[in-house]
Amino acid sequence: MSDLESRIRSSFDRQSMMHTLGACIDWVARGKVVITAPILPTVLQQHGAGHAGLAFSIGDSAAGYAALTLMPEGAEVMTVEMKINLLSPAIGDRLVAEGRVVRSGRRITVVAADVWAEAEGGRKQVAMLQGTMIPV
Amino acid sequence: MSDLESRIRSSFDRQSMMHTLGACIDWVARGKVVITAPILPTVLQQHGAGHAGLAFSIGDSAAGYAALTLMPEGAEVMTVEMKINLLSPAIGDRLVAEGRVVRSGRRITVVAADVWAEAEGGRKQVAMLQGTMIPV
Amino acid sequence: MSDLESRIRSSFDRQSMMHTLGACIDWVARGKVVITAPILPTVLQQHGAGHAGLAFSIGDSAAGYAALTLMPEGAEVMTVEMKINLLSPAIGDRLVAEGRVVRSGRRITVVAADVWAEAEGGRKQVAMLQGTMIPV
Amino acid sequence: MSDLESRIRSSFDRQSMMHTLGACIDWVARGKVVITAPILPTVLQQHGAGHAGLAFSIGDSAAGYAALTLMPEGAEVMTVEMKINLLSPAIGDRLVAEGRVVRSGRRITVVAADVWAEAEGGRKQVAMLQGTMIPV
Repeated sequence: MSDLESRIRSSFDRQSMMHTLGACIDWVARGKVVITAPILPTVLQQHGAGHAGLAFSIGDSAAGYAALTLMPEGAEVMTVEMKINLLSPAIGDRLVAEGRVVRSGRRITVVAADVWAEAEGGRKQVAMLQGTMIPV
Repeated sequence: MSDLESRIRSSFDRQSMMHTLGACIDWVARGKVVITAPILPTVLQQHGAGHAGLAFSIGDSAAGYAALTLMPEGAEVMTVEMKINLLSPAIGDRLVAEGRVVRSGRRITVVAADVWAEAEGGRKQVAMLQGTMIPV
Repeated sequence: MSDLESRIRSSFDRQSMMHTLGACIDWVARGKVVITAPILPTVLQQHGAGHAGLAFSIGDSAAGYAALTLMPEGAEVMTVEMKINLLSPAIGDRLVAEGRVVRSGRRITVVAADVWAEAEGGRKQVAMLQGTMIPV
Repeated sequence: MSDLESRIRSSFDRQSMMHTLGACIDWVARGKVVITAPILPTVLQQHGAGHAGLAFSIGDSAAGYAALTLMPEGAEVMTVEMKINLLSPAIGDRLVAEGRVVRSGRRITVVAADVWAEAEGGRKQVAMLQGTMIPV
């Protein structure tokens, strides 16, 4: 495991929300982080699909950690704002959130994330996020 | 309890995500719903404050149920999109999300929510949300 | 005219886009700026209402100048991101955009704006904006 | 010129705002529309770069017309909401806005747009937009 990846994983492990959602870091590269989470019976909305807050939480964390991969060592990252468009109900076995850096600046980092629902038959995009991160 | 309130509470009770976050409906009126959630050790980000996903989840649900109060009986509500600006770290005993309807239309409802962190000394706004709901 | 107001008006006067739209500064106070613009035949969308870009442009400028009123002298302001929800078609004589500061921080300022269409019979809200400004 | 393209161009020609900004339709395909606009002396912000309202206006129109390409004949399109992140100052000869459909539904269409500033030396992305359109 690279230094970069262990730095990201160490921060992620301190996010108790990620444990509560059953989320894991799947992949770390410079400017890109993938987080997955099962669609557990404990994270649903009233129709039995995954709650918008689930897609948001892992999308936001994937985007934030993507930003962190391009920040200096020792930095941490904070969400300034995030917008999510929901494309389809989050139905399936698990969600996969792919966060990426769109523009990395000295003061702010613009990020995006796509969230997919995976089931045996394939995968379908359920959400897209666009937001702003700052180092803290 | 009014018919309106029991309709909202019955939908809310089917959202397992709200149970997982320890969230409760605090207040229901036409066009306005308040949801509270403790800042539990299970919903934190890496610095020990409440995760952005917590403020988002209860803000989104409060805004969605505010929209539902103005929809015909039998309708359910779905989030089309939601944007959150984070104003301060979510530090304190609990979060209070006040959702309200800004414009109620036949096809779409524009909503907003403010989220506050409460502690013994008072309360501080931690997030503001603006989004779109549709009936389903 | 106060120093604050003349500072804002001087910056506004350098925005040629505001002249092109026929926009004027109507009111300046600490944390709040009002900009108006006629709904000219030159700024319409395909149905004859004011273009979304008109409401956005004056809402964004009102919010940005509201942020500037709380920044140190000599600072200028730049939009990081802005989200607009359109509530009604922009029909009437003129638009009025009321920009305000929601949270003023050292590094970023969170702002909001409401945009109204005015006609003889009264006024109707046509847009609401929520965004982020930084000093430059 | 295809029926689709002439339908889009005919609607575009009725948007007087596009004429005021000097904007042209550059390209039309199913689910994708490109609009360009010169960075005229009449559309600047206070530092001499293109106003955020310029990037927003052509990005919003490109995204809206991309949505319209997938709607039934006779439909027109309206913006429900749009969020813009500004990545760089709009400096150069002209802006190019590439609008695309992300998800086309019966009731709502999710869209996105990237806006680039072009100069002799090349091009640089200045904005990214994500929003929602409905047929009217």
